[in-house]
Amino acid sequence: MALRQLARAPMLARSGLAPRVVAAPLFAARQAAATVSASPVLSRAYATAPAAAAPDAGSSSNGGAPEPPKQGKFRRFATNFGRVTLVVAITATGAFLYVTQSEAHPGTQLEQDPTKPTLVVLGSGWGATSFLKNLDTDEFNVVVISPRNYFLFTPLLPSVTVGTLEARSLIQPTRFITRHKKRAVQVYEAEAQDVDPIKKTVTFQDISEIKGTTASVTVPYDYLVYAVGCENQTFGIKGVTEYACFLKELTDADKIRQKLMDCIETAAFKDQSQEEIDRLMHMVVVGGGPTGVEYAGELHDFLIDDLKKWYPEVADRLRITLIEALPNVLPAFSKQLIQYTESTFRENKIDVLTRTMVKDVKEQSVVVQDANKEIREIPYGLLVWATGNTSRPITRNLMNKLPGAQNVRRGLVVDDYLNMTGADQVYCLGDCTATQYAPTAQVASQQGQYLAQVFNKLGQKSKFERDLAAARATGTAEPAEIESLVKKLNRVAKVNPFHYSHQGSLAYIGSEKAIADLPLFNGNVASGGGAAYLFWRSAYVSTLYSIRNRTLVMADWIKVKLFGRDVSRA
Amino acid sequence: MALRQLARAPMLARSGLAPRVVAAPLFAARQAAATVSASPVLSRAYATAPAAAAPDAGSSSNGGAPEPPKQGKFRRFATNFGRVTLVVAITATGAFLYVTQSEAHPGTQLEQDPTKPTLVVLGSGWGATSFLKNLDTDEFNVVVISPRNYFLFTPLLPSVTVGTLEARSLIQPTRFITRHKKRAVQVYEAEAQDVDPIKKTVTFQDISEIKGTTASVTVPYDYLVYAVGCENQTFGIKGVTEYACFLKELTDADKIRQKLMDCIETAAFKDQSQEEIDRLMHMVVVGGGPTGVEYAGELHDFLIDDLKKWYPEVADRLRITLIEALPNVLPAFSKQLIQYTESTFRENKIDVLTRTMVKDVKEQSVVVQDANKEIREIPYGLLVWATGNTSRPITRNLMNKLPGAQNVRRGLVVDDYLNMTGADQVYCLGDCTATQYAPTAQVASQQGQYLAQVFNKLGQKSKFERDLAAARATGTAEPAEIESLVKKLNRVAKVNPFHYSHQGSLAYIGSEKAIADLPLFNGNVASGGGAAYLFWRSAYVSTLYSIRNRTLVMADWIKVKLFGRDVSRA
Repeated sequence: MALRQLARAPMLARSGLAPRVVAAPLFAARQAAATVSASPVLSRAYATAPAAAAPDAGSSSNGGAPEPPKQGKFRRFATNFGRVTLVVAITATGAFLYVTQSEAHPGTQLEQDPTKPTLVVLGSGWGATSFLKNLDTDEFNVVVISPRNYFLFTPLLPSVTVGTLEARSLIQPTRFITRHKKRAVQVYEAEAQDVDPIKKTVTFQDISEIKGTTASVTVPYDYLVYAVGCENQTFGIKGVTEYACFLKELTDADKIRQKLMDCIETAAFKDQSQEEIDRLMHMVVVGGGPTGVEYAGELHDFLIDDLKKWYPEVADRLRITLIEALPNVLPAFSKQLIQYTESTFRENKIDVLTRTMVKDVKEQSVVVQDANKEIREIPYGLLVWATGNTSRPITRNLMNKLPGAQNVRRGLVVDDYLNMTGADQVYCLGDCTATQYAPTAQVASQQGQYLAQVFNKLGQKSKFERDLAAARATGTAEPAEIESLVKKLNRVAKVNPFHYSHQGSLAYIGSEKAIADLPLFNGNVASGGGAAYLFWRSAYVSTLYSIRNRTLVMADWIKVKLFGRDVSRA
Repeated sequence: MALRQLARAPMLARSGLAPRVVAAPLFAARQAAATVSASPVLSRAYATAPAAAAPDAGSSSNGGAPEPPKQGKFRRFATNFGRVTLVVAITATGAFLYVTQSEAHPGTQLEQDPTKPTLVVLGSGWGATSFLKNLDTDEFNVVVISPRNYFLFTPLLPSVTVGTLEARSLIQPTRFITRHKKRAVQVYEAEAQDVDPIKKTVTFQDISEIKGTTASVTVPYDYLVYAVGCENQTFGIKGVTEYACFLKELTDADKIRQKLMDCIETAAFKDQSQEEIDRLMHMVVVGGGPTGVEYAGELHDFLIDDLKKWYPEVADRLRITLIEALPNVLPAFSKQLIQYTESTFRENKIDVLTRTMVKDVKEQSVVVQDANKEIREIPYGLLVWATGNTSRPITRNLMNKLPGAQNVRRGLVVDDYLNMTGADQVYCLGDCTATQYAPTAQVASQQGQYLAQVFNKLGQKSKFERDLAAARATGTAEPAEIESLVKKLNRVAKVNPFHYSHQGSLAYIGSEKAIADLPLFNGNVASGGGAAYLFWRSAYVSTLYSIRNRTLVMADWIKVKLFGRDVSRA
């Protein structure tokens, strides 16, 4: 799944390593400034100092020898620079603390109201989370159902496989999102098993290890937001599910990290044969999309930065092979970036086998048909499968219930308003839909944002309708007041169709190089290398869900710079 | 296992939150200072400023109204304070970077030398790691065998169960330790299956998921350091292994964290019955030693700090019960600290059931015989078993091979030099031995340190013997030179028996309170509360293996203060 694309519009306008983090403090600066100036000692020490120091620097330059003036100027600059730095640092720290503390302490919420319609949200991925984030819950009783009780920032998942980032830095609990809403939201960690679009009900089940006496429930909905995502596509090739690792969920990345270290330790085992070491140290990636490419790049970094230090006896035996059925990797990127990636991979000794089809996956080898239609068997230690998506069983089941309206195999059919064809109160978004858009985080996120606006208008509409009915019922309302309500009603009743605005595509390719394909200046700007790498980092940091995620990801990057990656198989 | 005790002598002499981290920069300050002064801009800006600013402060105070002098003094103080802070900060940062970079970049090592004796070390816990850390590998070919390729700082493990600390903050790869040694050390991630003290061989096996063609090997040893630790003691009670969680390994802590959140999510599931919510939210701990007590304390913190915020609908239903067979918890601590712990637990609504024996463990309940000999069945959501140790199969097997010499059931018998009775070249330490000492991290660590000194002397002895033989063989050596070598030889040949020096016991009991039992001033000093909490933190931070561990643990503590604990079930 091509998740590695930019997700929201604002971030392109920013630059620097941590634009959101810098920006957020500025917004909150007023509150923080009040806190800081409340301390008389601090404000006297730093606020009165400039006024006192400036005249001195001037007088010493007037009365001194020809040398001093320069020093005076420099001194004045240094002093002022120091003060500005100090004030900025104190303000930024105060603002950071203010934001973190307000995020960490959700207030009390309005209780759910039986007179409001029930809005059931299925999923906790990009689509559902973006929807929840932007939704005004005032006019709805919202119920969120997902087998994962957190949102995962998937584009950075390849970094978790080698320990560049820690798994928990990329996730944000769903409760964190819902507890900051005006009206209480019910969150159930469960898998939706069945949607009945006729009776308008959802059946969901607790599929985790610990179950209570109640483990399966059916709830009615007035509106359903369906954002369950997709499963991994195996193309029916046997052995994939059994022997390969996917790279879609957090548990997948953890499993890869475990298995990678297991391969290396087994290769370093006493008296291991040369042939077996070569097999164990061969890391194969199937799929040349952004996920596969980034994983290969991260593996290369791990080899160069860490493996050579701690496992010198086997590190040089590590080989990385990327298998892609198409003629080149990264089909969504421009030609020059594809070439740049392929030449970087050549430098990094990552083998790229294009026009190569996987025919069979065995426990220790993968059978492929290469560009010359020849069948080869490639021994591997670790196989990562990052090829594509297919509909989940619940989605296929839902399609089968509306055979007339739902006739596209690859996903749910929706209209321009994301309304599911054949089911009025169901809205679908993200990877489970069959639209003209790529199944990316960027699309799902924009759809979620759009759908939240639709529901916010719906909520306002019923509020204005209530107000209007009340005003008319009393009979004492001014005509102007009624007219104003009617106008407001008309305004919120108008909903525009969904419009996707592509913000560009990014991918990390290893050795502190990234590629960026950006639709700027009425054309495409393609960039690869170190500058794109900084842009990649800053764009992702600014897209992360919370200030907590941003802080943790940046801390992880610093940690790796200072201490390297952890090679424990833990 | 009572692992929560202090491990090394020096830390008691320190105070403050991060003594090692502060101390380390001072040692390395010279190198860092050279780096800093190499930058002319920096040194001018901050080094010339004091001389220039001070007269200004003076002159303005001389010429001003009665008020200014005070302000001048204050300003001078503020300026100087700022400068000192800046210089200290820059020096500390430089030193920190110097230490981290030198730790992260191990140099080249001497190759193993077939003429030197082979020293096999089994284990990677407190004993083996302390031994390896202090060993001079010059005179030995060292082979380390352990199923875990990292050292785990066990005393802080209870903090991982609720996310106060992240698992990886507490571990240090064994390779990190061995790669910093003078001569190369072979490390195999494998489980020792058999020790033959007659043939002097060890057989070990790769027990992880990924195995190579070679997965079991037998190696000969000249010396064996046996530090394999213990297993969890279940007292033959059925259901413990099946249904309870242990708290000994990193995977145990991760599993508890997972299950804890699973219980809470299941309790929050739609339409869960009240009785079932009570069961699911009942966390039972068996074992009133430091592990059990600290886990109960951490659970309480998690409830108060995090659960109430994110799961308000079920948080108040959480109950914690600690079951202990003895008349009180923490038998190793002084009476007043036991009372302090029990009263703190009462305040925190943690139920302590003493004189209560577990009879049976079922999937959802535990059957106990209480102080009145009555049998009760207690429903639980999560059961943590933290009672004690028993010998591993390989240890029992080794005892059976020497039935005459090894006749103590609870562990291996060693002499005062940690030499195993009945097996000359085998040295045993830590929890696998049957000594007069408690099975604590502190004992194992001191034993490892002692044993390293024994082996270092052994190495020096063979070196001096070689030198002496060479000096005598040439026949040209001065008698004084030979005499000096003989003296050196006699000195290193003298080995003192192991002497344990108890540094005190510490335990965290929740709500930012800890208890400390310290043998100071020829008596015992017992302290409980907030000061002991700071001492507990600083003692543990200073005992952590590396500057990396120390930095990560402190970062985790700050992270929890800023953002709270992560409630994702990831």
